[in-house]
Amino acid sequence: MSSSRVVFKTTAFERPLVTVDVVIFTVMAEQLCVLLVRRPESDGEPYPARWALPGGFVDVDRDASLLACAERKLRDKTGVAAPYLEQLGSWGDAKRDPRGWSSTHAYFALIPQPEAVDASATTTTEWVPCDQAARRRLAFDHNTILSTAIERLRSKVEYTSLPAFLLPEPFTLPQLQRVYEVVLGRPLDKSAFRKRMLDAAYLEEVGMVTGDHGRAAMGYRLRERDQATVFPRTFKSGE
Amino acid sequence: MSSSRVVFKTTAFERPLVTVDVVIFTVMAEQLCVLLVRRPESDGEPYPARWALPGGFVDVDRDASLLACAERKLRDKTGVAAPYLEQLGSWGDAKRDPRGWSSTHAYFALIPQPEAVDASATTTTEWVPCDQAARRRLAFDHNTILSTAIERLRSKVEYTSLPAFLLPEPFTLPQLQRVYEVVLGRPLDKSAFRKRMLDAAYLEEVGMVTGDHGRAAMGYRLRERDQATVFPRTFKSGE
Repeated sequence: MSSSRVVFKTTAFERPLVTVDVVIFTVMAEQLCVLLVRRPESDGEPYPARWALPGGFVDVDRDASLLACAERKLRDKTGVAAPYLEQLGSWGDAKRDPRGWSSTHAYFALIPQPEAVDASATTTTEWVPCDQAARRRLAFDHNTILSTAIERLRSKVEYTSLPAFLLPEPFTLPQLQRVYEVVLGRPLDKSAFRKRMLDAAYLEEVGMVTGDHGRAAMGYRLRERDQATVFPRTFKSGE
Repeated sequence: MSSSRVVFKTTAFERPLVTVDVVIFTVMAEQLCVLLVRRPESDGEPYPARWALPGGFVDVDRDASLLACAERKLRDKTGVAAPYLEQLGSWGDAKRDPRGWSSTHAYFALIPQPEAVDASATTTTEWVPCDQAARRRLAFDHNTILSTAIERLRSKVEYTSLPAFLLPEPFTLPQLQRVYEVVLGRPLDKSAFRKRMLDAAYLEEVGMVTGDHGRAAMGYRLRERDQATVFPRTFKSGE
């Protein structure tokens, strides 16, 4: 079939608006944080001046795919490529956007602590601890999308290497443990954590680095940065 | 904010095509099957006469939401409402549909063995065993969507009550075990299966029914039909 010679009929229906939103997580000051952007105040914009997740319309001329669109939004807001970007789900209905029937494809991204991130607190972007962000009245259905993302991340932390994507490399095992604890919201036993991480064999040693309090410690990085490792079992309570 | 008084600016971008596709599973003749529909042969239709997953454009005038659209497609093709319908993911890019930039929201549905289903094999719809369906060259990226759905279903079977949604109620424990075995693709130990199902406490007894070979057996139904029960652990190998 040569599509260049064929004229395809297309839909007579009005097309929905199509957007991509990205829930961008990091850890700052031992808190799981999410990037919010303030919507423009101008007339004719829905939810003016309200905080929202970064996102916007798919641009059919620029975006080769939904994932490429999510990567573009992420790069525009943070200046970085995410080491981890996963599709979260989609939300679409007649009422979520006052401009008309709209569907959004939501992604979530994990990026290392934003020393290297352009978006520090400004008037239009802000890293907000997740529990605070969840209490704000965000634009559209972004509260629902955010809470779904937090739930997904927390559930995956139980059995994957995901939190390692929140750290700049190399990291030490105590630094990795703290990130797990921050995302899980509870302390973990040090020796069980160390055994579990090393047994899972998803880290590789990169030599001694300066760890906490200036002490030398083994530095690690992820063996494979293109996927999360799934552990054979979840953390037991008290482990 | 009264949206009726405000004129919202909308996008100047060309809007992508938006579709919903539904992977509808059932079990027939001890095989996991999926419903395929044959695309029209007429000129101007992409992938003419090719088999595809049921689906089509979101109709902004009829569909209140993506889920409502999925329910409508399912009802149109099978005449039934699905006891279980879950969002699978979305696929969108510039090339998957020759009519233009398109994104589809894919769902998967589980329905009981289709005694009561309108769609038996016709020239335009057919229940196809999943392994055979996977070998056909389906329209669009439907092979990818189908394989993702099979993988999701199989992974969830390990730790949820999902296969029970593939049975008409009431069902016996041997019937339920067979559906688990069909989806998992391997036999399960009878006494371990019985203990596990009853321990999970997601079934309720409805009294004696006529089971296999005309023998009386306890009939069961799902305690809650609106959600899958998640078991505390997966099936062990050999269990």
